Amino acid sequence: MKSFIIDCLQYANWNRKIFEELSKGEVNAIHVTISYHESFEETVKNLVSWNKLLEENNDLIFQGFSTEDILFAKETGKTAIFFGFQNPSSIQQDIGYLEVWHRLGIRFMQLTYNNQSLLASGCYEKNDNGISRMGIEVINEMNRLGIVIDMSHAGKKSTIDAIEISNKPIAITHANPSFWYNVERNISTEVLKKLSKNKGMIGFSLYPNHLLNGSECTLDSFCKMIVDTVDLIGINSVGIGSDLVQGQPNEVVAWMRNGKWRKTNQKNEEKSKFPKPTSFFKNNCDLKNIGNGLRSHGMNEEEIKKIMGNNWFNFFDRVFK
Amino acid sequence: MKSFIIDCLQYANWNRKIFEELSKGEVNAIHVTISYHESFEETVKNLVSWNKLLEENNDLIFQGFSTEDILFAKETGKTAIFFGFQNPSSIQQDIGYLEVWHRLGIRFMQLTYNNQSLLASGCYEKNDNGISRMGIEVINEMNRLGIVIDMSHAGKKSTIDAIEISNKPIAITHANPSFWYNVERNISTEVLKKLSKNKGMIGFSLYPNHLLNGSECTLDSFCKMIVDTVDLIGINSVGIGSDLVQGQPNEVVAWMRNGKWRKTNQKNEEKSKFPKPTSFFKNNCDLKNIGNGLRSHGMNEEEIKKIMGNNWFNFFDRVFK
Repeated sequence: MKSFIIDCLQYANWNRKIFEELSKGEVNAIHVTISYHESFEETVKNLVSWNKLLEENNDLIFQGFSTEDILFAKETGKTAIFFGFQNPSSIQQDIGYLEVWHRLGIRFMQLTYNNQSLLASGCYEKNDNGISRMGIEVINEMNRLGIVIDMSHAGKKSTIDAIEISNKPIAITHANPSFWYNVERNISTEVLKKLSKNKGMIGFSLYPNHLLNGSECTLDSFCKMIVDTVDLIGINSVGIGSDLVQGQPNEVVAWMRNGKWRKTNQKNEEKSKFPKPTSFFKNNCDLKNIGNGLRSHGMNEEEIKKIMGNNWFNFFDRVFK
Repeated sequence: MKSFIIDCLQYANWNRKIFEELSKGEVNAIHVTISYHESFEETVKNLVSWNKLLEENNDLIFQGFSTEDILFAKETGKTAIFFGFQNPSSIQQDIGYLEVWHRLGIRFMQLTYNNQSLLASGCYEKNDNGISRMGIEVINEMNRLGIVIDMSHAGKKSTIDAIEISNKPIAITHANPSFWYNVERNISTEVLKKLSKNKGMIGFSLYPNHLLNGSECTLDSFCKMIVDTVDLIGINSVGIGSDLVQGQPNEVVAWMRNGKWRKTNQKNEEKSKFPKPTSFFKNNCDLKNIGNGLRSHGMNEEEIKKIMGNNWFNFFDRVFK
């Protein structure tokens, strides 16, 4: 099997410079967020903007729909861009919208983003019902279509329910284990074990809020965490979902946090800044640093290949079909 | 104080004959459902249809916005039509839509209809989280604007949370006590007591699924239940919310039940029939039967006035402002 570099979550203020870095970093595929709190029509508009980017930079990037596209990316040195939602707001109340979005290339959908959704509960809600009646229907439909169920921002019970209800493996595209750094957004050992038992995937995040010591986190500490997670759940359920944010103005944090579900106010605004990235991971050229770090921790080339992309490739192959 | 006849929930396939019955029955005000599972734009279309009805029948009906409109209805013999939602789908993900809807005359919104919503959990969900983070924000905004928080189709914990969070009294516009007939849609004694303690209202439903013995329920049994509820929670928290359905084709039941949250199938369709109405309540002329039934049960005229409309009038007066 060829080796791939795949990052299963990025959210940049996209421009040609970033696409050049993807190429320079030999990144074959990334999953990008095209919607947080948007309605159907608002997300269509985001798609239109993306189509413009894809057309203007078609020497570097193209839209990915299947693992064949990742093979094509590898051959041509381009990067396949896979679209996903961090929240199900774009399906509004309508399960039928899922097939429309799938046709448009959506391959990932979080069942919730921090809060209670129509489908599940978020990691910042006081209580977690688990998966709702509509949630069960939506999981079945996502299984049928081949859209990845992503529980990165969900509550614990919702995540466990999703693992159990889904007849395909699910993903937590961007988070870290709470045994390393215990915050709501990170994932308990119990959930990690259930996830991997069902052949699910976790993508390790480089977003400072999810890292031990935040922006001061070291490559050594990060790689040690990966090694420990592999010891816990095996080598086949882990990958990278860097949550790399580039060039976003701070207003975007307020948008992510508040969406339109609450009126923003001074108090909320104050907290709304993107954290400084770590010294070892600032852009797509730095993905290779992680491979090097893992090598220093004694991982062999086969294991590093799996973590840097091949596990995601195999997972996509199982789920997209 | 004048006496009013107010029915706090009806859902008909509206036509002139029904408006004539409202007039004949001397009904001063009704709350009608204009949206279940619709998006913002779909509900605007329902509003456009209603505007046509209002214009064509302006000798009989007009849109109500405040209790002054009920006084005007009493004077002129017309019926004031107040609009409401049985589900928050029309605000989509946007708390800002509430003020837009208020300006358009929406005076009631259920925080959920049977299922988990962005705000609360429904009576048919396996678990009930209570009110969500967005739910708290929406309750505050509904309080500010003067939109009635309606928990008719909510779960128990969500309803108790709503009573506690809201700084205005809330309503269960159409349901019955579960001590009389114990189904998910009816309301426990615990909730009824908390509701009335906070000056909230319950509107007694005549929809056969909420009635002891269903379509065979007698006026005597129904009125006895009202008397028992008054004994339990007092005379000031009770009214009528008949849930009167007239002239709706059976397809509409499937719409109400399934919305767009699940794909309909044969199994679901089979259950989708409107029940036969009781012998004593078939249209708006029959509202007076309830007054007569309460009289037979020894209620005095003051009490009957309160139940048949004056309690709703006072409640609207407190909440709409």
